[in-house]
Order: sequence, then C-alpha cells, then structure tokens
Amino acid sequence: MSEPKRQKSSKDVPYELIYWPGIPGRGEHVRLVLEEAGATYTDTAHIENGVKSVTAQIDDKNVGDNENPPPLAPPILRHGDLTISQTPNILLYLGARLNLVPDPEDDADGLYKVNQLALTALDGLSNEPHDCHHPVATGLYYEDQKDESLRKSKDYVKNRLPKFLGYFERVITGKASGDGPWLHGGNLSYADLVLFQCLDGVKFAFPKAMESAQNSGKYDNVFRLYEAVKDRPRIKEYLNSDRRQKYSLGIYRYYPELDVIE
Amino acid sequence: MSEPKRQKSSKDVPYELIYWPGIPGRGEHVRLVLEEAGATYTDTAHIENGVKSVTAQIDDKNVGDNENPPPLAPPILRHGDLTISQTPNILLYLGARLNLVPDPEDDADGLYKVNQLALTALDGLSNEPHDCHHPVATGLYYEDQKDESLRKSKDYVKNRLPKFLGYFERVITGKASGDGPWLHGGNLSYADLVLFQCLDGVKFAFPKAMESAQNSGKYDNVFRLYEAVKDRPRIKEYLNSDRRQKYSLGIYRYYPELDVIE
Repeated sequence: MSEPKRQKSSKDVPYELIYWPGIPGRGEHVRLVLEEAGATYTDTAHIENGVKSVTAQIDDKNVGDNENPPPLAPPILRHGDLTISQTPNILLYLGARLNLVPDPEDDADGLYKVNQLALTALDGLSNEPHDCHHPVATGLYYEDQKDESLRKSKDYVKNRLPKFLGYFERVITGKASGDGPWLHGGNLSYADLVLFQCLDGVKFAFPKAMESAQNSGKYDNVFRLYEAVKDRPRIKEYLNSDRRQKYSLGIYRYYPELDVIE
Repeated sequence: MSEPKRQKSSKDVPYELIYWPGIPGRGEHVRLVLEEAGATYTDTAHIENGVKSVTAQIDDKNVGDNENPPPLAPPILRHGDLTISQTPNILLYLGARLNLVPDPEDDADGLYKVNQLALTALDGLSNEPHDCHHPVATGLYYEDQKDESLRKSKDYVKNRLPKFLGYFERVITGKASGDGPWLHGGNLSYADLVLFQCLDGVKFAFPKAMESAQNSGKYDNVFRLYEAVKDRPRIKEYLNSDRRQKYSLGIYRYYPELDVIE
C-alpha cells in the first residue's frame, strides 16, 4: 500500500458521540452499537456543556476542516481525525469496525444487506413517527400543527406501521435471515439494534397501536427480535443504567391524542 | 482468503435496475451513476412489462431468497446473485465499484464522507420536496392534502431549501472539498451526481424559489456544481437521450399553486 498522502493520527482512541443531551433521539442508534460492542466512547449527553460541542459543529459558519466536510445535523461521530455525520453512515462505519456486519469472508456484500435493513427501519419507524408530530414544519411547534399531526398519525397507524412491521416479519421469515431471531445471516448485526430502538420508540409514541400489533400475532418474529436484543447482556446493563435517557420531546413523543388505533 | 461458503456466480454481468417506468424518481440517482461510469445495465423503465419486475419484488409475499432479504420498495439493483435496495445503499455499492468515491489509498474513510453528503442531499432535496405534495399520507392523492401541502411548501421554500443550499455551499467552500467544482476531495464522486439530480428536481418543482436562490448569489458554488455535472460528456449525452425520462407525478412535481416564493 502506498504512503497515505495525509498525516493521520492513530485511531486507537475513544469514539466521540456528539449529540443533543436530554433525548435518546437518533444518537441512540449509535449508543446501542457502541454499548453492544463494549467500545470506549464519550457522549456529549453526559459531558458538562456538551451541547456546545453540538452547536459548534452545526454552526452555519462551520465549513469543516482539511479532511472532513461539515455536518448538517447531529448525530456526529468523531474518531481520531475523522468527523462524520448522518445516522446510517455512522452505523455503517461503526458496524464494519465493531463486527456488527456479516464477516466479509463469508458474505462479501453482507454490509449492503445490513445497510438496506437499517435504512428501511429508520425510514418507516423513526423518520415517519417523527413526522407524525411534525408533518408541516420541523421548525414549528407541535401545537401549531396538531390537526395535521392527527391526520398523519391515523394514516401512520393504519397503513404505514403495519407495512413496516410486516416487512420485517417477512425478512425474518426469509431464508437469508438464517437461524435464530436476527434479521440477516443468523448473527446479530447493527440492523437488529436499529430495529430494536425503532420498535422501542414506536411503543412509546403509539402504545395502543403497538399493543394491538403484538396481540395480533402477525409480527411474532419482530417482537421476538425486540426481546432478544433487550436481553443481550450489555444492552440490558445499558438500558438499566443512567446512560439510557428517557424519551421526551425528541423523535418519539407521547401525545395521548395521537395514540390512535385503527 | 477462505473459500466462500456459498456458490457465487461471476459479477461480470450487467447491472439490472428495477424501478417504476415513467418517472425519473429515486431510480434516477442510480441511472446517473451508471451513465457517468459508462457501465452496462438494463433498466425496467425501458423493458416491455418492466413494471412486473417491480411489483414481483415488492409483493408482500416476497421473502427474498437464500442470500438476500426482500426489498420494501424500489429502486432495486440486481447484480449477479446480489439483490439490494434503498437508494443510498445502491449508490454506495456502485460508487465503490465504479470509482465514484475517493481512492481508499488516499483517503481510507472517503466513502463515509461521500455517503454523508449523498444522504444529506437526499434528505433535504428529495425526501422533503416529496413530502411537500404528500405531507399527510403517501397513500392519499395530492388533491386530498392540498391545504397541508401549501403550508409545507411555504415552509420548505422559506426555511428548508435555503438551509440545504447553504449547507452544500459551505461544503464546497470548505478545504475538504479540494479544488474544482466538486463536493469532496477535488474529484467527482457520486455525491455530486446525487446533488445534481436533486437540484434539477427542485428546479422543476419550485422554479420560482430556485430562480430566486440562483439570482441571490449566495449559492454560486452549488449552481456551478450543477452546471459542471450537466456538462460531463456522458451525462450530457444521457440527458439528451430518450433514456432520460420526463418529470411527471413522481418525487418532483410541478403544481403552480405550490410554486411559492418567500
């Protein structure tokens, strides 16, 4: 291999998660990957004035540095000289480093299958639930778009949630998922952690619809995966620790009036 | 390297794009990458009854095959034994194979920077414009959500579009973009093609706002990139060919009543 053209400090340093304090949010997907892997990391949610690291990164004067473009929004991961953003992108980076993707010697393209599954979970079980309380404008308060939120939540619970739960049930039923509770290749991947966190969030935001989905018996494999992730020793320890933040006014919100059922 | 556990046919076969005929849509990002690279590919948009390949893939009985999970939605890429979905995921796969990411010997993590930029463009300049005409429910007609669409479009043009245009202007201003018109590392990457297609679509959907943005002089680097992609010889040939489909009722739609200006 030729000499790298740029100087590069060692990556034998802790991962740094830069994300809003006070909510699990999109940062939670990154935390779960780091926790499951037992990786050493820092988290602005637990650093005094950590929010300043977030606002400095997303300042509209930030043009990045010699190596890295600026991020638009958190979560942001710093690792040595590298600064990257976008949740599925950070997961891809960490997944490959922390053995949460298929072994490339067994399945050279396994990474793309896991990435596909993670992106699909984030689309339908994180972005869409967020839009249920902010269908018109992320810059407005929920209170300024309550009617539209109710309309969207009804559609979400009736049409979209079953579509995505049904999709993941099919994935686990398919042969490519392998044995055991996981989505792909018979082994835990970061897509399983993403799906767990998405299901956990949707349970918080739409408890009635999720209880009904669970009782329907149509998505037993999906809920089995949820429990299997929750029982992973490191995940269990993490969820019971004060590193796990409570849901509040982030992606997943509980508004009784939006907790509709089909 | 150990013997792969599964049989694998050669990948020395054309790429197969499986996507709805009749609109550029999300499939267009895949097409532009294949066209720029001069790759050999088939496209269901130009195959008789091609739509049947799409509906078979996304049928809610499809559980995938021995190697691949099913896709939720197109675009879908088949390449030999591999079947993958999710636009940014397909781009990642193709980008790495078709030299539209930084050379890993120069920048081992360049892939993640390009992926970050592509994901951000798709978020703000493809998904959000789509939601401007479908803010309540993708399953309903635009005509059933016209009031909400107007509210969202006004917010988009006033707040979101300038945010994303400003972000990409900053990226190109930053040192990591290197010399020339491109987003990262001084070379064309698939993120540039994604941004081009996004800008082209937003120009179609919101011509007044985009003309105003261009005339403002605030985003000169962004519009320079747009022209630079359009002038690439293979892209130019493609855009003038009948392989390039017209915008109609896809992601980017032109409704005069939504063509608002701040």
